[in-house]
Amino acid sequence: MALGTSERREAEVCVVGAGFAGLAAAKRLADAGHQVVVLEARDRVGGRTWNRTLDDGTVLSVGGTWLGVGQDRIFALCRELGCETYPQYERGQHIIRLDGTNHRYTGMIPRINPLAVVSLGLAFKRLGWMAQTLPLDAPWQAKNAKHLDARTLGAWISSRCNIPTATARQMAGAVMTTLFCSDPAEVSLLGALVLARGGGGFEYYADARNTETHLVEGGVPEVAARMAARLGDAVHLSTPVRQISQSASHVEIVSDRIVVRARHVIVATPPPLAGRIVYEPQLPAMHAHLLRRMTAGSIIRGITVYDEPFWRADGLSGMSAAPGSPISVSIDQTPRAGTPGILSSYAFGPQALAMAKLAPDERRDIWLRALAERFGPKALSPAGYLETDWTAEPWSLGGMIGVFAPGVLTISGHTLRQPVGRISWAGTERATAMHGLIEGAVRSGEQAADAVLAALPEPAAATA
Amino acid sequence: MALGTSERREAEVCVVGAGFAGLAAAKRLADAGHQVVVLEARDRVGGRTWNRTLDDGTVLSVGGTWLGVGQDRIFALCRELGCETYPQYERGQHIIRLDGTNHRYTGMIPRINPLAVVSLGLAFKRLGWMAQTLPLDAPWQAKNAKHLDARTLGAWISSRCNIPTATARQMAGAVMTTLFCSDPAEVSLLGALVLARGGGGFEYYADARNTETHLVEGGVPEVAARMAARLGDAVHLSTPVRQISQSASHVEIVSDRIVVRARHVIVATPPPLAGRIVYEPQLPAMHAHLLRRMTAGSIIRGITVYDEPFWRADGLSGMSAAPGSPISVSIDQTPRAGTPGILSSYAFGPQALAMAKLAPDERRDIWLRALAERFGPKALSPAGYLETDWTAEPWSLGGMIGVFAPGVLTISGHTLRQPVGRISWAGTERATAMHGLIEGAVRSGEQAADAVLAALPEPAAATA
Repeated sequence: MALGTSERREAEVCVVGAGFAGLAAAKRLADAGHQVVVLEARDRVGGRTWNRTLDDGTVLSVGGTWLGVGQDRIFALCRELGCETYPQYERGQHIIRLDGTNHRYTGMIPRINPLAVVSLGLAFKRLGWMAQTLPLDAPWQAKNAKHLDARTLGAWISSRCNIPTATARQMAGAVMTTLFCSDPAEVSLLGALVLARGGGGFEYYADARNTETHLVEGGVPEVAARMAARLGDAVHLSTPVRQISQSASHVEIVSDRIVVRARHVIVATPPPLAGRIVYEPQLPAMHAHLLRRMTAGSIIRGITVYDEPFWRADGLSGMSAAPGSPISVSIDQTPRAGTPGILSSYAFGPQALAMAKLAPDERRDIWLRALAERFGPKALSPAGYLETDWTAEPWSLGGMIGVFAPGVLTISGHTLRQPVGRISWAGTERATAMHGLIEGAVRSGEQAADAVLAALPEPAAATA
Repeated sequence: MALGTSERREAEVCVVGAGFAGLAAAKRLADAGHQVVVLEARDRVGGRTWNRTLDDGTVLSVGGTWLGVGQDRIFALCRELGCETYPQYERGQHIIRLDGTNHRYTGMIPRINPLAVVSLGLAFKRLGWMAQTLPLDAPWQAKNAKHLDARTLGAWISSRCNIPTATARQMAGAVMTTLFCSDPAEVSLLGALVLARGGGGFEYYADARNTETHLVEGGVPEVAARMAARLGDAVHLSTPVRQISQSASHVEIVSDRIVVRARHVIVATPPPLAGRIVYEPQLPAMHAHLLRRMTAGSIIRGITVYDEPFWRADGLSGMSAAPGSPISVSIDQTPRAGTPGILSSYAFGPQALAMAKLAPDERRDIWLRALAERFGPKALSPAGYLETDWTAEPWSLGGMIGVFAPGVLTISGHTLRQPVGRISWAGTERATAMHGLIEGAVRSGEQAADAVLAALPEPAAATA
């Protein structure tokens, strides 16, 4: 790194990462009159929310897109920044595809084998009860934490004692693969329960009527763009941070272009990326352990654009689930005006990895055929087709929910939100509530900023 | 990175990492008449073998130190390079400390509660049988691989069905924590069996009479130093590799100081470090998945030097095990001459992390008191004391055995030894046999070199 040529900046607080966590932290600090500098590795803000543009000018939100029930902070930001929200299209019937047959249903529960439905419902309830026994902010302190953390979500789901019917086991596996963007065998049972504990149960996450109720005019990334605009030239793009050195009096953040000297730094990147920064002195062993073991799940999102949302005329909502299919879920993402018709569909976990291996033509072919099985042959001929492999994005490395491998939380989970001297942490993976969602990112960023604010002297303007 | 100022080199093969895997690969290629360049991040060769020197000039081997039964390749290298080996001191009685009491024993099996001994023996046998059913080179293809990979070694050990007596469960946990430098809850049951499958069972690893039979005059690092000396100025130290770009015709390796253009590259670093290199084009998703999820366990080695090996006079071998103690094992490392007396002792996994958190004085105090409980008060006053925290070493990040978290092997384990175009992989974590040992590193490096040799044209000298 050619440090000699780097620009030097001073700030009270440096924020690393301009996703929603970093922007929310920086905004709160700036609103309180403090001087911040934000360093972002990408050439854009918004993190794992992203507007991409097709050749014909259609703008597509390819990352975090929906807002949902109880997500108060992100709705408040939308209002404050003048970003309009509008409800998700939810008329029509959803499809669940099982063993080659489409079943239409409305509400949350498909009309399949009633035993499977009951058995799945009971499994979710049992997991919910297990989650409720965990201390909200410190699940690793639960009496049975070691036991739960030595088990995988996959082993729990695949047990006939826990879920008696095969269809329900398959469905539970598909739901959990979707939530964690990982094979449930990769996920600690305790780690899985953390999500349920902080987010109103797995039902909250698994039901689009909770998490996907509204879209933002112009896309969620527009909210991030307006937050960044308020911060003005405090935000530096294409500026990956390589090293953070702290002393008793200050912290120095070394990026490829700028060296910032500050009183505090908030690292608001996905944990695996935070783990690649060089810390001087080294992070305490427990912090390093957590950062080296937290992973980001695998997720590819495919967006298909049609002249109109043809599925609506067929009485369908566009929402579909197909356990076992490489493209396990889809959802309608048509803009408020009603055209073009836009479907968002996804490959998760091992299926995303398997799809990533294919040649682009082959992948597109499989993708469109999977949609056509559910929505008919019109799905085969989109006017626009755009894939985003979040796992291949070097500044994301994958999905949005913190994946805790077995054993990790009970060893080093207590460092998840624990500052190290002048270094604090933010990001949706570290959020107690609404973990893995944009809302979790915002809350986590604001919480980190509040803690730093409490440690900072009053800004000059306020004391004058 | 100031690429403009970098030196440029051409080679047939570039080797990344000058540990035993990288050196063995480079040596084999050079011996066959090919031009190699070796890039090493550290300011020394030898990787996770390392000679450190005390103020009084005493040289201590603080990483891989012992050779053992069946480790043919490393013994052959010692002979070839003129490094003498000598047998490990194994007279006297070993100590196992349980519930505050020292029990002396000889051989492998301590004379504790016979039920515990039988129950532990049976558990190892059962694990061995399970391992024997796995395909040697592709354990992830076993019929029950998914089942085994969704379970943790920790859950298996802690089950009363598998190990009926509490003492045996505690001992099994301690043995496995030692082997994997990790809480067994972090380790996939399938991943654990891989070690047993390729290495003659857990008994091979758990019994010092297999793995710790000989030392090398001057320390094992001397072998690495002589291999490097043969390679001459082909070895570049303090040269961390940041990026590897390949095209149809060649591969370019960008380090902080040198850019190498080669036909092939062998990446012979610990897998977590291989995962931090930027690959252009990106690694296939499955390879990236494996590299991002393989971790290095936690290990601190403490070496205490005394005027003489006083424990020998007490009829002790210096070997001790104390499940539950932060310093769970010790072994005699006295040089052939018989003075000074050197004990090597270790903290592993969560205990290593907990020890790393302490202030140096406090850690030393706990360390010495743990030794004194086993060897008497003389242990409290060493003439020399040296800690090596391998987890804090930025170019190791931890221990030597590949730790596979649950779910990982059955998803991406097949990429462990799979080249990506012109990129091959080596390292003890990738070895089929003698995995996690110096021998595994050598064999893996030689195997990778042989595969590259098969793809290279004959060297000019040989065809002339």
